[in-house]
Amino acid sequence: MQIKIKDIYSQCSSLYEQELTIKAWVKSNRDSKKLGFLVLNDGSCFNNLQVVYKQDLISNYNEVASARMWTALEVKGILKSTPNAKQAFELVANQITILKASDEDFLIANNDLSLEVLRTNAHLRVRTNLFHSIMKVRSTLAQAIHEYMMNHDFLWVAAPLFTGNDAEGAGETFSLEKIDNEHFFSKPTHLTVTGQLQAEAYAQAFGNVYTFGPTFRAEKSHTNRHLAEFWMMEPEMAFTNLSQMQDHIEDMIKYVINKTLTINKVELDFLASKYDANLIQKLESVVNSDFKRVEYRQAISILEEAVKNGYEFENNTIAFGMDLASEHERYLCENHYKSPVFLQNYPKDIKAFYMKLNDDQQTVASTDLLVPGIGELVGGSQREACYDKLLNRINELHLPLSNLQWYLDLRRYGYYMSSGYGLGFERLVMYVTGVNNIKDTIPFPRSHGQIEF
Amino acid sequence: MQIKIKDIYSQCSSLYEQELTIKAWVKSNRDSKKLGFLVLNDGSCFNNLQVVYKQDLISNYNEVASARMWTALEVKGILKSTPNAKQAFELVANQITILKASDEDFLIANNDLSLEVLRTNAHLRVRTNLFHSIMKVRSTLAQAIHEYMMNHDFLWVAAPLFTGNDAEGAGETFSLEKIDNEHFFSKPTHLTVTGQLQAEAYAQAFGNVYTFGPTFRAEKSHTNRHLAEFWMMEPEMAFTNLSQMQDHIEDMIKYVINKTLTINKVELDFLASKYDANLIQKLESVVNSDFKRVEYRQAISILEEAVKNGYEFENNTIAFGMDLASEHERYLCENHYKSPVFLQNYPKDIKAFYMKLNDDQQTVASTDLLVPGIGELVGGSQREACYDKLLNRINELHLPLSNLQWYLDLRRYGYYMSSGYGLGFERLVMYVTGVNNIKDTIPFPRSHGQIEF
Repeated sequence: MQIKIKDIYSQCSSLYEQELTIKAWVKSNRDSKKLGFLVLNDGSCFNNLQVVYKQDLISNYNEVASARMWTALEVKGILKSTPNAKQAFELVANQITILKASDEDFLIANNDLSLEVLRTNAHLRVRTNLFHSIMKVRSTLAQAIHEYMMNHDFLWVAAPLFTGNDAEGAGETFSLEKIDNEHFFSKPTHLTVTGQLQAEAYAQAFGNVYTFGPTFRAEKSHTNRHLAEFWMMEPEMAFTNLSQMQDHIEDMIKYVINKTLTINKVELDFLASKYDANLIQKLESVVNSDFKRVEYRQAISILEEAVKNGYEFENNTIAFGMDLASEHERYLCENHYKSPVFLQNYPKDIKAFYMKLNDDQQTVASTDLLVPGIGELVGGSQREACYDKLLNRINELHLPLSNLQWYLDLRRYGYYMSSGYGLGFERLVMYVTGVNNIKDTIPFPRSHGQIEF
Repeated sequence: MQIKIKDIYSQCSSLYEQELTIKAWVKSNRDSKKLGFLVLNDGSCFNNLQVVYKQDLISNYNEVASARMWTALEVKGILKSTPNAKQAFELVANQITILKASDEDFLIANNDLSLEVLRTNAHLRVRTNLFHSIMKVRSTLAQAIHEYMMNHDFLWVAAPLFTGNDAEGAGETFSLEKIDNEHFFSKPTHLTVTGQLQAEAYAQAFGNVYTFGPTFRAEKSHTNRHLAEFWMMEPEMAFTNLSQMQDHIEDMIKYVINKTLTINKVELDFLASKYDANLIQKLESVVNSDFKRVEYRQAISILEEAVKNGYEFENNTIAFGMDLASEHERYLCENHYKSPVFLQNYPKDIKAFYMKLNDDQQTVASTDLLVPGIGELVGGSQREACYDKLLNRINELHLPLSNLQWYLDLRRYGYYMSSGYGLGFERLVMYVTGVNNIKDTIPFPRSHGQIEF
């Protein structure tokens, strides 16, 4: 019976003494003249399968004994329970076929490669246990997001990546080169920094929608938290206010983390052993905790108090109106609250034009979710639903009205209330895996000057 | 009790005589002085809710009676079973609050708008029954793809959209403009036309992987089948040959269509009434049929026979080596086989460099899935696993070896076998909805000269 290693693990008790066939790659191989052990992986799960091969059973014993790491093999053998060994079972080979050899210079055979070296070999690094674990968790998180959204009747919207608009103005944008001296789209075209405006148009028809796709920032930063190309999820919910949206965000984050804890236990255990011994407890505590909700004004007081008590930030000048830096955000969730925290109602001058002006005329109905180890994971707001107020804000900020007229017009046709947020997907992967460089959370990272593969 | 219209439909029998509160938009409104009827939709489902409002119950009767299309309302009322009426139930309002009015010039109030006019109003067209139906089906198909892949242990891989490579050379690519007179990524950068090469690297670690993301073609075509920005799913499967991949494709297509038939029956019925009375039967027959598998050589014979029998193609010159046009593909699946057909083993000269050369030295292990009404829906191949053969092909075609060395190197480390395909997602949406212009299958279409919103 042809089988995957994952299925051997999940059904092993019913498979003992049966002949199984697997196709897989060699992760390690040691022989002692008459007896050898192969550790195989077929990609179906983190766990490997141990194969025992014996000179008296295997006709091509010497060939097998010299099979190098990542050689592709087919093994036929009998699955044996091994209650006294480290692993619960092993496959005793009757026949081993070398499907494809692996060259001697296989980089990953060296166990001591730095993350930097692995990054410049992004096509091979995924064959390490570390990147196998990270990318499995990443995939689970993405699929769990779609699953959660589907279960809650959110429509998936493909926001366009090409835009004639540079509305949000969040950082630099990439632009398209002319083709045959002409703009392909008849005007200068940028790569989008957000799908929010289009998502709002769809929320006014479907109620609950979300985008999940790539976005781009032409920032020349060389930090461990920035990419030029990254994935964002941007839900938008009509008839929903800020507090209801926070309920949803908390529920969604807990769902996807819980899903990962359930189906990626082995990978998370491995990541915990590499990065953060408390990873599992950290994630479990997020699932079981109530996220705090704290006014921006209150956060300023807490930070002022911290400075008074001798805590030293790089920026110690704390005052209403300031844009919190990562160090401030992390102080709040890591030192003060020791849990995820929604900050809310930020000063309007440090936030985007489309956010709903609060009655105090100073703050807007915005919220950032701050999480320990990362800082901002989610940023969202209730949108300004009033045509005139939104128009004022566009004019105050000298934004190009002609590009935004359609967006403004949404307010003229039953736009009662809408809230939405952006989740930086790689930030979420960092948070859940414990990885501390964002370039290690995406298969082929793109950042200033880096575009291999 | 605050409730969504979708939930009223699914739980109605347990809700009769209860007081319900809904927030929704007006789709139509007619009153006869003492009694009025509102048809409301909240986006949660295609179905509307009928609300009866009576002058003796509603204090603001005149205000409600003048509420225009897409006014946002809150209605409190009692749900009544109406066994003798067209609809199974209605809400008899006790209280109606106007949450937000809708301006008089609401475009969608006009029922007779052409698809062209709607296309130039992509922010509003989704409020029509037609685009509501299309976009619901689109979202279901995308979510069902992720669900199917998750259930079958496929890892989702984000292929990079920025590439320093122009390897496949399938049509023109978009390039990034320099920033401050420099290439942001230190070299000329294009937007990808495929994530396949990167997916292959991941399949060699995980076995089964898939990308699902946007791709780009700078083609200046103004047909109803081309977009400059569209979504592709590109699975890649190690240890899998062409025929096993065809099994998977057939199973996946049937799964996602079946899912859509199950949860979007109402939308598909509506689409059937607009486009193709046989839509449901067509989709059911796909789910229940066995897809044919036909050699390219055999297809050429069938087309030659058709020409002999007087069938007139625009291109009547049929011969081995030709690239089939859409008219030929559609003849094969629509007229000859009357079902989806996998064509396989195409001449190597009309296919990409990475496809596995067959023993006849003339054809490659490639396959296109042809479906009635569309033509090519899926294109895939078994990959060339032999380093030397692949290198020969790269040299024969004068492809830039330096960009492809990493891809070639995959063959040096246990690359035994791999097959993969690309599914044009908007083509799938066209097929399942019956829509005949691809610009009506994506929320905000981008094509040559067109980049509104």
